[in-house]
Amino acid sequence: MLGEFELIARLLVPLARGRRGALGLTDDAALLPPRPGHVLVATKDAMVAGRHFPEGEEPGAVARKLLRVNLSDLAAMGAAPDAYLLVLGLPRSLDEAWLEAFVAALDDDQQHYGVGLLGGDTVGTEGPAFFSLTALGWVPHGSELRRAGARPGDDLYVSGTIGDAAFGLHVAQGKLAPADPADAGHLLGRFRFPEPRLRLGVALRSLARAAMDVSDGLVGDLEKLCRASGVGAELRADLVPLSPPARRAVEAEPDRLAAALTGGDDYELLFAAPPTARAPVAALARELDLPLTRIGAFTAPGEVVVLGATGEPLALSSRSFTHF
Amino acid sequence: MLGEFELIARLLVPLARGRRGALGLTDDAALLPPRPGHVLVATKDAMVAGRHFPEGEEPGAVARKLLRVNLSDLAAMGAAPDAYLLVLGLPRSLDEAWLEAFVAALDDDQQHYGVGLLGGDTVGTEGPAFFSLTALGWVPHGSELRRAGARPGDDLYVSGTIGDAAFGLHVAQGKLAPADPADAGHLLGRFRFPEPRLRLGVALRSLARAAMDVSDGLVGDLEKLCRASGVGAELRADLVPLSPPARRAVEAEPDRLAAALTGGDDYELLFAAPPTARAPVAALARELDLPLTRIGAFTAPGEVVVLGATGEPLALSSRSFTHF
Repeated sequence: MLGEFELIARLLVPLARGRRGALGLTDDAALLPPRPGHVLVATKDAMVAGRHFPEGEEPGAVARKLLRVNLSDLAAMGAAPDAYLLVLGLPRSLDEAWLEAFVAALDDDQQHYGVGLLGGDTVGTEGPAFFSLTALGWVPHGSELRRAGARPGDDLYVSGTIGDAAFGLHVAQGKLAPADPADAGHLLGRFRFPEPRLRLGVALRSLARAAMDVSDGLVGDLEKLCRASGVGAELRADLVPLSPPARRAVEAEPDRLAAALTGGDDYELLFAAPPTARAPVAALARELDLPLTRIGAFTAPGEVVVLGATGEPLALSSRSFTHF
Repeated sequence: MLGEFELIARLLVPLARGRRGALGLTDDAALLPPRPGHVLVATKDAMVAGRHFPEGEEPGAVARKLLRVNLSDLAAMGAAPDAYLLVLGLPRSLDEAWLEAFVAALDDDQQHYGVGLLGGDTVGTEGPAFFSLTALGWVPHGSELRRAGARPGDDLYVSGTIGDAAFGLHVAQGKLAPADPADAGHLLGRFRFPEPRLRLGVALRSLARAAMDVSDGLVGDLEKLCRASGVGAELRADLVPLSPPARRAVEAEPDRLAAALTGGDDYELLFAAPPTARAPVAALARELDLPLTRIGAFTAPGEVVVLGATGEPLALSSRSFTHF
């Protein structure tokens, strides 16, 4: 096991390169110059081995998911990411090679997403490994996306496809074994490597009335957005976009549709936009090469109703997935 | 055990009251308006049960120390604190009463220090409890205090008294049993409830050339400051300010002086100022009612030399304390 100071100097300092405000990770705190006309957007999530990822997960997958779920929160607010702080809670079982692979993947991802390490802390633990990341970004004053703001009559959209991550978890747990190994790979990949919808979030600043990311399950998260907005919603289950592997999983076992609608970890954006925005939303989907699917509508204050293909309400045993 | 959502709604949302940017802790991220002309200062520390505090420590002491050690990092940069994000990593053994006491103490401290909760995450763990806090503050552009900046010939100062926290840990561990129970209480209190020197940090913006907080031991931390500044230092051990209880502990067992000089958790500020600043530093000490003691001087690049009362170099077996 590396000592704390060696770990910082050899592995973490390179993640702060080019960041003057990180002060080489040798100071008590870090500096981040504000962007004129912008408001700071801050989020902080944690992951624990055995709960948020399997104990034997590859270090690179842990690192990427940790960063990406936080960036997804920034995306949901329409923020452009800037920097992050990192806490590593390390048991002795994680050796130097593990940390090197963790840092290499984080380095790759931070370059991809244009963020850099500002600071943080490294501590030992007798328990399972834990990680916490604080992501900082900026949004022009007054143009942040929030969960509150959807109005009755607004269209309900979701980006990308839904359910892949839930099915990916099932594959990891041995509960789902697709006939085609490529399907298993796709689903697992979506569970392990979520894609924060940052460009979409920025573009939605001027189009959406409300937004959030789907981290705990589509239906449960939609309920949260409705509660924050003081509206109800009708969700058309048959319109929810499924990837071909997810569609094949549901065709093999129709009960799986409920898991797709309520499972977590999709990290797609759910958003409300007025019907007048349909053409720009369609144009945006083409520009980003990302499906933006209308899956229902917001209604007067009330329940979230999930409807099947023939308009009948579906009963779901569980509405959201909790990591707690 | 409370569910995650109930815990947030009932215990954590009150900590975000009056903070519009916290959005009632119901959104994906939080908003923090910048202060014009200021730079953001960010720090993030973590604490693990059994490592950073005893397993049976009172929840209120855990909460206060978690907040204060982060505020101490802001103080060391001369920053004024604004807000914080919080991660709770909770084993099942921490019940509702524990959490209520934790939150009540945090509430009390956040009012005292003028900060508020912005967001964070709550997760379960099979291991020891862990906590991570990200503190955010602001410092006028260009006036932040840093470890780099001390020059040969500058005076070396430390605030408050040194060694109380190390001796407090010894009391907690049963290694030190002062004759007077009041001494034990004082030392333990300094270990459990550090006082972030926020007013001092702000005042030092215009007086100090370099500063840091003493978290890992006076001598080892001084070495870090010297390395960042590219200077050496002579530390006069006999000038290091000890509280009466710490002085009595050293008088009973002179070898304990080394523990005072190298033990952690003091959270006093160590700083460099030119000899021309002696009168204003003395005036500041009176204004803050806080000892600011000159304990040596910075020298040409080289080692940190610790001198005894007669000018002889002292040998210290360990130069700093590591929590890792």
